[in-house]
Parts: sequence; structure tokens; C-alpha cells
Amino acid sequence: MKPAEKQNARPALDGRLLLKQLEMLGEVGGDTTGREYGFPAGKRTRLALSDGDKTGRDLLVRWMKELDLKVRIDPIGNIFGVLSGEPSGTEELSGSNLENALMIGSHIDTVIDAGSLDGAYGVLSGLAVARAFRNAGIQPRRPLVVAAFTNEEGVRFQPDMMGSLYFTGGISIDEALDTIGIDGVRLGDELNRIGYSGDADPSLLIPKEYLELHVEQGPVLDSENLDIGVVEHLQGISWKRIEIAGTANHAGTTPVSMRHDAGYAAARVIVFLRELARSAENTRTTVGSFRLQPDLINVIPSKAEFTVDMRDPDNSCLVEGERRLADFLVRLADEEGVTVLTEILARFDPVQFDKELADSIESSARKRGFTYKRMTSGAGHDAQMLARVCKSAMIFVPSKDGISHNPAEFTSEEHLLMGAQVLLDVAFDRLYAAHEIHAT
Amino acid sequence: MKPAEKQNARPALDGRLLLKQLEMLGEVGGDTTGREYGFPAGKRTRLALSDGDKTGRDLLVRWMKELDLKVRIDPIGNIFGVLSGEPSGTEELSGSNLENALMIGSHIDTVIDAGSLDGAYGVLSGLAVARAFRNAGIQPRRPLVVAAFTNEEGVRFQPDMMGSLYFTGGISIDEALDTIGIDGVRLGDELNRIGYSGDADPSLLIPKEYLELHVEQGPVLDSENLDIGVVEHLQGISWKRIEIAGTANHAGTTPVSMRHDAGYAAARVIVFLRELARSAENTRTTVGSFRLQPDLINVIPSKAEFTVDMRDPDNSCLVEGERRLADFLVRLADEEGVTVLTEILARFDPVQFDKELADSIESSARKRGFTYKRMTSGAGHDAQMLARVCKSAMIFVPSKDGISHNPAEFTSEEHLLMGAQVLLDVAFDRLYAAHEIHAT
Repeated sequence: MKPAEKQNARPALDGRLLLKQLEMLGEVGGDTTGREYGFPAGKRTRLALSDGDKTGRDLLVRWMKELDLKVRIDPIGNIFGVLSGEPSGTEELSGSNLENALMIGSHIDTVIDAGSLDGAYGVLSGLAVARAFRNAGIQPRRPLVVAAFTNEEGVRFQPDMMGSLYFTGGISIDEALDTIGIDGVRLGDELNRIGYSGDADPSLLIPKEYLELHVEQGPVLDSENLDIGVVEHLQGISWKRIEIAGTANHAGTTPVSMRHDAGYAAARVIVFLRELARSAENTRTTVGSFRLQPDLINVIPSKAEFTVDMRDPDNSCLVEGERRLADFLVRLADEEGVTVLTEILARFDPVQFDKELADSIESSARKRGFTYKRMTSGAGHDAQMLARVCKSAMIFVPSKDGISHNPAEFTSEEHLLMGAQVLLDVAFDRLYAAHEIHAT
Repeated sequence: MKPAEKQNARPALDGRLLLKQLEMLGEVGGDTTGREYGFPAGKRTRLALSDGDKTGRDLLVRWMKELDLKVRIDPIGNIFGVLSGEPSGTEELSGSNLENALMIGSHIDTVIDAGSLDGAYGVLSGLAVARAFRNAGIQPRRPLVVAAFTNEEGVRFQPDMMGSLYFTGGISIDEALDTIGIDGVRLGDELNRIGYSGDADPSLLIPKEYLELHVEQGPVLDSENLDIGVVEHLQGISWKRIEIAGTANHAGTTPVSMRHDAGYAAARVIVFLRELARSAENTRTTVGSFRLQPDLINVIPSKAEFTVDMRDPDNSCLVEGERRLADFLVRLADEEGVTVLTEILARFDPVQFDKELADSIESSARKRGFTYKRMTSGAGHDAQMLARVCKSAMIFVPSKDGISHNPAEFTSEEHLLMGAQVLLDVAFDRLYAAHEIHAT
């Protein structure tokens, strides 16, 4: 093995073009989509399957074709750009050669009034990796697939991560297409309207490995001044709606001892959940939505309705947190003379990413001299769906102040390029170098 | 003094007619007023100066005239029915003879979907006292005035207790008439429309003493199985709106140590206020209204807005409670990294009622063999305005389960009649017997 020769053969990242494409895609879905849904003009809103999403998809497909990738669309509108692993001229796709693929993916739909990076950064960095291979004239030994999954955000159509959920067999095509959006339209109709109902068979596109590069959407890397997050697992999520029923009474006349104050009982739950999070190693608890009835200044609340968001990367810890909350609610009902109803809104087990892929990510960061940490993802991503069917891992770059789903979402160009470089390193390692070593 | 003769001379309560009039007035303001304001038909809603209120006023004035009371209306629409203290035939009213009057009053406007007793019971019991004098052929030695004050509830026009506030000099007539209601109409225009804009000079109607009989609107008498509340003071009220600003962040990715959770900080305030109430003798605290922003399950709240209702019959204790809350908010802002804004919505000093009148009430209850306690009023009443200008006190009867401002408001007929009997006893004692004793 001659190190000098190998060094020369490495595909190089075109960082300038990646940043330019991020900017161009970021300008899509401003005025038109905003107005279409009644939002102020100029806000970046590419809700799934809206006109803005169509414009973004058209741009992505154009860029895929410019790199001579084979574009495939599946029945839910997931877009795949394939760089074949076979020698030129024998690129006809078949199931057999994609079983071996490395897929790099994310999504290009957005929330309402979004930032420019969430999702788009992962897809366009995938394109940048394919471009690096093309520019270097290097044929990967296995196929490289760049994927953009439909409706990751779940703002217009629920559930979120729908495209990757369908792709990995978690929802039938009929159920997905029949989903009705917040604007009353059927998903399948919108998919036909924008021309992204395809016929590629997802079962033939399942890859061997999946990588997703994403902004952290949390403050950990930024606050710890780190460059790269090696994401080795994704938190389990437990969402509950809790309804506490007490007794409405006059605020001025009812002694404390005779109160059954649903609002006070709910406040005790919020304080308890913070103590629970403090006493556990990794459990996170949030009460984000909260309503009182009758919601009057001088009436003791008869009803409190609120949500609980509890997360932990370890399922046994998540189950333990749920148990402690349930025990507390029983005690609370007794102590306050209230009734407590709990409804499960969502429950996802934690996802363990592939150790070998995570090690590759860490190895690249270390060799490049980037600071990094192995970490968990608190947010949900398409990668958690892909992890059901193939080896998967994620790479994070810092989000300034942890802000996301907001026009203030920001990652420095330096960090954006560091993340894409690590992605390219790992892809090259998996697709070419590792293969070569095995072949030697 | 010949006890036997005096016994015979006592005016007697016509309990049956009082209950009948309560029922008749309670039927007013159902369909028409309900529909007028978009509420379901059949709900009892006599919002101030609405058609339902006009019908109730017409009925009250008719009943006053049937008892040969002189009816006077002042510029805000307060209704006064005067039983002169002068011998028959010389009843022409002047300021001089009303300075000596005993006034019995309350209100006949209601909240939306109200019970039948709040307010109406006090006014109609005043009529029952006048009727008892008339039926017994007894001329009181001082004038007796039955009063119904405009807009006590403050639902349609604010502030509440507006009629008695104007009557006692707390608001100018121009300001009161220019008040705009929740339905966008001007109070003065509505007053003219229903024909209750009068010209009686309130300064000539200020009485020497004021009594108000009312359902408790709280659970104390009912839960302690008592018949009569001797109301010796009325709580001071401190209403605040508190706004806590934190930082919105992703519920899954933000560690506890990095959170500035406005909702959690607000929950700590609610729990603190309960501890404050528990550690003080008479302070009552309630958080009745509460909102979060952005109010999403997976976003740490950036803002919490809530109200604080704090009451105490002793102003120094109320001031101490306000100080402790303010200190806590400073500590909270520091500990949670949030900013806290406090706005004063209302602040009323406690009202001390007249000891001599309270003693008279207690004396009647004791002699009649009714169980009773001296107590505070947690709710606001017209009596608190009258207490600014004359000796005042209140009599309470039990409210079943403390429920009020609700069709389920209930007091047994037995208790309604006990309360009216005590009112009659005190009025007779003040207007006749006491006078006679002094004259002896």
C-alpha cells in the first residue's frame, strides 16, 4: 500500500458549491407557499407536497441529473439519486446491486417559517459526496444513493417521518396516500398534483448502510464548543396528555383545605417532572402545552390539560420514568382530591445506531483534528426509520444556541463544511477504501 | 316596657311571598337575553342594562309601588324604594330625612347562565322587610330604603360594582356612562334605551346605615353546617398578571441545566403561592388563568402568562403576602434565568364593617336559635362601596357546596327565610325598637 498514491485519489469536497446550493434551496418556498397557506409573505415554508416543496424537488432532481445520477421516485414521493457501483455503461439498476448501497439521506420539506438547514443540509451534502466522486473520476465499488424523504416534518400531514416510515415498511401506501392534511387535502391527490407519485419499488432500494448529516437542533455541541457530534443513538420518546379534574370554586371564599385545584395539581406535576429529570441520568421531561378551565382570574380551576414529553436513549430508563410519573399521579389524585386521566399520544422505543458506522465518523473527526463527542439525538430523524432495516448512524454539526425550526437557525459555514467533509470521509471509507482493503 | 305588647307589635315576615318573588324574578332573562347575546335559550342571563335586566327592573319597581314605596332612580340607574320615616301624609322626600335612613340593598343584574339568588335575594328580602312594616301597620322612626344597584357583576360593563361605586363617589357619572360594553355599546345609551336614566341626586340618598343580605358564594357555612354568617369584614384583593419570559428550545435536545423554561418557572410560582397561603393565617391565593407560548408538546415554553388572585381580610397580611411573592419572583428569575414582569390588575384594601351592626346581626341569630359564625366575605359586594360612606354590614346564608355564578347555586328555603328573618330583626331593632329605647 502506497500512502502517497492513496492520498491523491481521495475525492475532494466542493464546499463553495454545497453552500451555494444550500442558499438556492433556502430561497425556495418563500412568498408563494407562505401566501398559499395564509402566512406572511417572505417566510420560508416548504410544507410537504406544497408548491414550494415541488419547486424544491424540481431543483434537487435537476442537480441530481447534472451529476448523472439515476433518479427514482417511489409511490410516496421519496426521491432517490443513484450513483452506480458498477463500471460505466453497465449502470442499469437492479435490486441486486442496490442491496449493497450506501444511502445518504434526509428531507427537503420544512416547518412553517423555517430555517434553511434542517433536512436540506443532509440531502445537499449527500449530493456533494456524489459530486466529489464524480469530480475525482472515481467509481465507488458499491452504489451510492442520495435520498430525500417525503414529509419528514409532519406539519401538513401526520405522522411525521412519513416517507421513511413507508420506505421501511411501517405504514401501507394506501394509508399514507389517504392522509388528510391540515388544509383538508388528501396526500395522494397533492402528490399527483405536483407530479411526484413514482413507481420505484422501495423494497428494491433498501440499502446496506444509511448515513444522515444534520444540524443538531439542540445546544450541546454549540455550548461545549465542539465541531462534530457522533450520533450513536436516538432517544426513545413518550408523549402523554394528562387531564386533571378538580372542582371550580370562588377564589376568595374557598379555604385552602377545601380546594381541589386542578391547576395547582398540574403545577405539582410540572415540578415533579423536573425533579425526575434531575434525578435521572439522561431522562428529559418537558411540559410544553398547558390549558386551564374555566381560565378565569377569580375561579379555582376545575380542569387542567397538559402534555408531557419524556425522552431517554435507554428504554429501561424511559420505562422507569413513566412508572415514576404514574405513581406520582396516583398519589397526587389522593392528596388533592382530583381525578387524573392519562392518554398516550406517542411512544417510540430508543434507536441504537450502528457502532461500526459511529466509529468511522469518530475516526474521521479525530484524523481531521475536529473536536467531537459521541452523543444522542433528542429529535426524531429519518435515520431512526432506516435503522429498522439497515446499519445507520448520524453526524451532527452545532446549532447556534440550539435554535431550529426557526429562521434564526444558524450553523457557521466552517462547521457546515466540517460536517460534509466527515460525511465524505466516511462514504469514501465505506465505498472505496474499505472495499479495496478487503479486496487486497 | 311591656314585653307582651312589644312582641305583638313586631312586623312579621311573609316568607311565602318572598320565595314566590325570588322565583318570579328568577324566571326573568331566560330566553330573550340569552339569545340576544348568543347564549343557549333558557339560560338565566340578566346582564346589566340588557332587555332581561329591564324586565327585572320593571318587576321590582312594580313591587315597590305595590308597597307604596317612593321610587327614585339616579343617573346611573340605581333604583331606590323609600319607606318614609315620617308620619303618613308628610312623606315628601328631602335630603334631610334620608340622612337618617337605613338602606337595605344589593343588585338584580346577573352573570351569564346565573343562579337565581345572587343579588336578587338581598333586594327582595329588603322588599320583604318593607312589606313586614306595611303589613303590621308600623311606621318606622327613620326611613327605610330598598336599593338595587346597577351593574354589580361587571360582566357586560367594567368595573364591577359600578352602581354603588358611582353612588359613593368613586367614579364620575361621565366616566360611568361612557363605559363601552363587551358587545360594543355605550352604557349611557343602553340606560336611556331601557328607560332607567334617572335624576335623583345620590348625595341626598346616602343613608346612615346599610345592610346587605347575600348567599355566601363560598363553602364555609355549608361545610360547617351553620345557618347565618355575621360578616364583619370583606377581604382585601390583590390581582396581578405575571409574565415570565424564558427561551423556547427543543424538548428532546436541551439538557435540564441549559433550560430557561417559562412554564416550569410559572409552575414553581403556583406551588410557592400555595405554600404562602398555607403558612399565613387567612391569606388565600389562586392562579386561575394560565397560558403558555408557543404551547407545543415538544417545545420548551418561551413564555408563561398567568394571573394571581391574593386576598386577606387584614391589609398588613395582604401587603406581606405581596412582598413575599415579589421576593420569590426575584429569586426565581435568578435561579431559572428568566425575566419576570408583574402588572397590577386590581388592588382593593380590605373593608371593615361596622361592629355595632354586626353585633345586632349576631344578637338576632342567637335569640332565634340559629347557628352562626362571624366571618369574612371573600367575594366583593356593593356593601364594600357603601362602607366608605356609612355604617355597613352583611348577613350571609349558606351556599350549597359553595357554588355560585352557576345555575346550580342553591340555598334551602329554610336558610333563605332565616336570613330574611335576621335582616328584619336588625332593621326593626335599628328603625323602631332601638329608637324607642333611646326615646324612653
